[in-house]
Amino acid sequence: MDAAQEARNREAFRQAVVNTLERRLFYVPSFKIYRGVAGLYDYGPPGCAVKSNVLAFWRQHFVLEENMLEVDCPCVTPEVVLKASGHVDKFTDLMVKDEKTGTCYRADHLLKDFCKEKLERDPNITAEKAAEFRHVLAVLDDLSAEELGAKIKDYGITAPDTKNPLSAPYPFNLMFQTSIGPSGLSSGYMRPETAQGIFVNFKDLYYYNGNKLPFAAAQIGQAFRNEISPRQGLLRVREFTLAEIEHFVDPEDKSHPKFSEVSNLEFLMFPREDQVSGLSARRIHIGEAVSKGIVNNETLGYFIGRVYLFLTHLGIDKERLRFRQHLANEMAHYAADCWDAEIECSYGWIECVGIADRSAYDLRAHTEKSGVPLVAAEKFSEPREVEKLVIAPVKKELGLAFKGNQKMVTVALESMGEKEAMEMKATLESKGEAEFHVCTLERVVTIKKSMVTILKEKKKEHQRVFTPSVIEPSFGIGRIIYCLYEHSFYTRSSKGGDEQLNVFRFPPLVAPIKCTVFPLVQNQQYEEVAKRIAKSLTATGISYKIDITGTSIGKRYARTDELGVPLAITVDSTSSVTLRERDSKQQIRVNVEEVASVVKEVTDGFSTWADMLWKYPTHSSSATED
Amino acid sequence: MDAAQEARNREAFRQAVVNTLERRLFYVPSFKIYRGVAGLYDYGPPGCAVKSNVLAFWRQHFVLEENMLEVDCPCVTPEVVLKASGHVDKFTDLMVKDEKTGTCYRADHLLKDFCKEKLERDPNITAEKAAEFRHVLAVLDDLSAEELGAKIKDYGITAPDTKNPLSAPYPFNLMFQTSIGPSGLSSGYMRPETAQGIFVNFKDLYYYNGNKLPFAAAQIGQAFRNEISPRQGLLRVREFTLAEIEHFVDPEDKSHPKFSEVSNLEFLMFPREDQVSGLSARRIHIGEAVSKGIVNNETLGYFIGRVYLFLTHLGIDKERLRFRQHLANEMAHYAADCWDAEIECSYGWIECVGIADRSAYDLRAHTEKSGVPLVAAEKFSEPREVEKLVIAPVKKELGLAFKGNQKMVTVALESMGEKEAMEMKATLESKGEAEFHVCTLERVVTIKKSMVTILKEKKKEHQRVFTPSVIEPSFGIGRIIYCLYEHSFYTRSSKGGDEQLNVFRFPPLVAPIKCTVFPLVQNQQYEEVAKRIAKSLTATGISYKIDITGTSIGKRYARTDELGVPLAITVDSTSSVTLRERDSKQQIRVNVEEVASVVKEVTDGFSTWADMLWKYPTHSSSATED
Repeated sequence: MDAAQEARNREAFRQAVVNTLERRLFYVPSFKIYRGVAGLYDYGPPGCAVKSNVLAFWRQHFVLEENMLEVDCPCVTPEVVLKASGHVDKFTDLMVKDEKTGTCYRADHLLKDFCKEKLERDPNITAEKAAEFRHVLAVLDDLSAEELGAKIKDYGITAPDTKNPLSAPYPFNLMFQTSIGPSGLSSGYMRPETAQGIFVNFKDLYYYNGNKLPFAAAQIGQAFRNEISPRQGLLRVREFTLAEIEHFVDPEDKSHPKFSEVSNLEFLMFPREDQVSGLSARRIHIGEAVSKGIVNNETLGYFIGRVYLFLTHLGIDKERLRFRQHLANEMAHYAADCWDAEIECSYGWIECVGIADRSAYDLRAHTEKSGVPLVAAEKFSEPREVEKLVIAPVKKELGLAFKGNQKMVTVALESMGEKEAMEMKATLESKGEAEFHVCTLERVVTIKKSMVTILKEKKKEHQRVFTPSVIEPSFGIGRIIYCLYEHSFYTRSSKGGDEQLNVFRFPPLVAPIKCTVFPLVQNQQYEEVAKRIAKSLTATGISYKIDITGTSIGKRYARTDELGVPLAITVDSTSSVTLRERDSKQQIRVNVEEVASVVKEVTDGFSTWADMLWKYPTHSSSATED
Repeated sequence: MDAAQEARNREAFRQAVVNTLERRLFYVPSFKIYRGVAGLYDYGPPGCAVKSNVLAFWRQHFVLEENMLEVDCPCVTPEVVLKASGHVDKFTDLMVKDEKTGTCYRADHLLKDFCKEKLERDPNITAEKAAEFRHVLAVLDDLSAEELGAKIKDYGITAPDTKNPLSAPYPFNLMFQTSIGPSGLSSGYMRPETAQGIFVNFKDLYYYNGNKLPFAAAQIGQAFRNEISPRQGLLRVREFTLAEIEHFVDPEDKSHPKFSEVSNLEFLMFPREDQVSGLSARRIHIGEAVSKGIVNNETLGYFIGRVYLFLTHLGIDKERLRFRQHLANEMAHYAADCWDAEIECSYGWIECVGIADRSAYDLRAHTEKSGVPLVAAEKFSEPREVEKLVIAPVKKELGLAFKGNQKMVTVALESMGEKEAMEMKATLESKGEAEFHVCTLERVVTIKKSMVTILKEKKKEHQRVFTPSVIEPSFGIGRIIYCLYEHSFYTRSSKGGDEQLNVFRFPPLVAPIKCTVFPLVQNQQYEEVAKRIAKSLTATGISYKIDITGTSIGKRYARTDELGVPLAITVDSTSSVTLRERDSKQQIRVNVEEVASVVKEVTDGFSTWADMLWKYPTHSSSATED
């Protein structure tokens, strides 16, 4: 099968899934009656239930299992917080404008589409040109505004809708801006991630945890990105649910006490070196990956393992799940290591979870900006003689040189790490001055030898004070759910063979509704039994759907298979009922009184369908399935 | 006790509660290290757990129990939707500005504070003046901008912080505004309520429900109000979680099949007439309230009953909960009836749930604005001869008169209800023209006799098409939680009597952590047992806290009582443990293997503590409680 045919098949498969999802109200474009807004979607009843099940399992699997501290912070965020985090200055995409209509496009998307189109559709392309286009695609994320602009000009790329000329690329901040309070003077943004809410609370959370490391905080909530031109349906949207964990550790000890519980897991990993060498992802033991140094540390490895368990439990196909390490140029300069859980769907490999060791960057940035030290301390059982770094800024000299900015330079000097400080000391001694980046001023200043004394002193210390490192697993819940839909979807012939029926093979954990209740025929006795069963399902907390329409049982099964409902109860007598499993279509007979608890056993995961097949008589009747 | 003393006691009680809540991280002001933002709060770990428990119970009690259709829509909302709903034009508060500093205040708050202060603190006030101030307080919500401004001028009210003169009151829209997409041309707002997301989806939801009425849709999510000057802590905030239900019914049949399940409930109600006559709230059977017409209809009554059950189950004191009917001037002009569940706390009676019959207003407004008919149909089993209203706008005449607005006038004419249309017909016949309010134009136009034909025809009809009425229970989750904190808080003396200890008497349903595990003394054997118990608690889904510090058991109990943890397990042998209940401080002995399931039984509500006291030997030991 050639690439073009494969692309058509993927497209057809996606259409089948998306049609089913929209028709059954898993999701719909928001504000449809007003012709919608690109990049905004509503979850309808089954989609909403799936999401709520995924989040409940996330809480169970991560928050409860690890005793994490869950917090819940507002979406509205004042500018100062996102200035400190770097979002105000750097959370941008490069945009070009149609010079006549003003329509905006993402510059990299236009260049990417152009190169792909040429490679896939142009039969006259030379080998040399093809190599060039492939190179452009490979380095796309690294191109500066100027480089992108030059390529767009070179290739004569125009606005896709009008063929008008395009402006030069310029950065567009992706945050939704707003104004807090009535004065119009206090600028704010809708948060682009939930993490900052945790960082600014570090001090309180550390205290709550008894001033002990390591600990993790977690947050589930909405995040917002004002995408330039949203595409790929649920995968690139302007508002989405994130579930984020910030695990704080001592930078000198990133071991994890429970690592042995995951170290034997084996799954597809795609280390940096393999990507650079043109190899494919391969199965690696996570224990081995850590011991060989492929993964930077045990805690990062532990979370990679836990994420693997989380996703596969939900029903993500483990053959279409890989952990890809960021290339050096993809990572933020401060990051120690970063792995993305990527799930393959009809759009290709999609980043769904990012697991990053962000070192001490975020806590340092907020310490500098707020002046509140976000640090931890290790108390020694007895005092230790340590060589201690002393940084003594000379206020008079700094005042003369930096005037009103003196305080910010001073704070920045004092918060240098040991390595940085010793490098500055060496530079000052050899050259008499040194360049120094002050985050809060957002520029580099020149520090003269007379402005600061840096030395190492021997001292008795009772504790070691340090900025913790943070390891951050960050989950794009909507993306995970979309991939789950694709991995769970299949079609099968109707009994007559004249129709293709859609099925979602959701595990009970995920299924939006756990079971359906159908009276076989419309009569009062059966309806009463059905209502009795419904009541006991509600009491045990099982979500169900009751269908007392006269539609044939086969049609009713097909309708609920399409919602991924795992079990169906057909009331065909007043004492016992038929219980049918969705994928095997096998049926067993269960007493009316027992059936709610049987459904609960299976959907809570305490028993399997196979257990039930062994325990209860099977039922074969062509009367109930047509 | 005089009013001033009472006020001081309330203030002291509130301080005790709030101090405990902030110290134990139930909530904290957001972005504290940056000196915070008024009206924004973070829920820390216990607050977050309480919130998640309240929401889970809400889902169980309403969504699951009633088979509601839950949806999940974005917060970012395009302007057109909120224009249709009326929020762009009418969701405002009146504001005054300090004429020198520009600081903004809510005009009604300043007037209210002034009158209250005078009444409470001014001993020389005349009876006449006192009556005037009381009258102002009573009609405060009805005052226009001009009237408010006149009062402020009359009384010489100045800016509270500076005593500077104030501007005249002017309306300030309370929505956070933003811009969607990169063009800057598409205005949007952060939704002020979740309800609109349901209304715009009515057509799909009705179809999902098999084109049957009644049905209810529900949504939990963030909503935003850019308050002018937030006060009262968690009660008036700029971002909050709403849980809203929109129950759609046939306006001709607002009965409810399950009304009998609540009709015997009796609780404090405060009908409109009693308020006007100066009476107090009194205990009324909800069944009687409906049959006597105090409550407009059964469905409204059913939800009032369900809300009562919901709130009291959470632990709201039923003596400090009342259902207050809106006065005629408080209700929107379209509303048929409206009741607020008000909870009394140290701030007074606080509206926590609004239960309104909004008639067909919202669906009509979106039908008019979008041109998509949001209607339902009742199919007749056999065709009926009906007198049918025919509204035939004369396009030519309307075009001449209204030019570009013709279409909007036409649509508005066509969507008139029967009563309105027949009134217009009469007016046109008597006067030759009629005033007509067109929502989408936001003004009144004059309709001439030549522009429209209105008549009643006899016709055979197969169905009746109508706009459903909506009954809306809307829950302010943060407010409910804050009141719950106050109702659950008490203090008691420590055993030594030298200290006042704080306790939250949360029911297990609400408690942030269900139990704690303490080894009595620090030794390896006990620690291992504690860890084994912890593991089995995790497996059964019980949230717990393990405390292996050497602190005295008494102190450890006090710490967790302050978090409202209902049960504590003290490991004082390797075979059995002591289980202690928070409020009674009673203790029983339970085997190590059994204890997790005992805790689960009690916290899931399948057994009570009294059942356990009867089943297991009690334990009295002063060793474990000091």
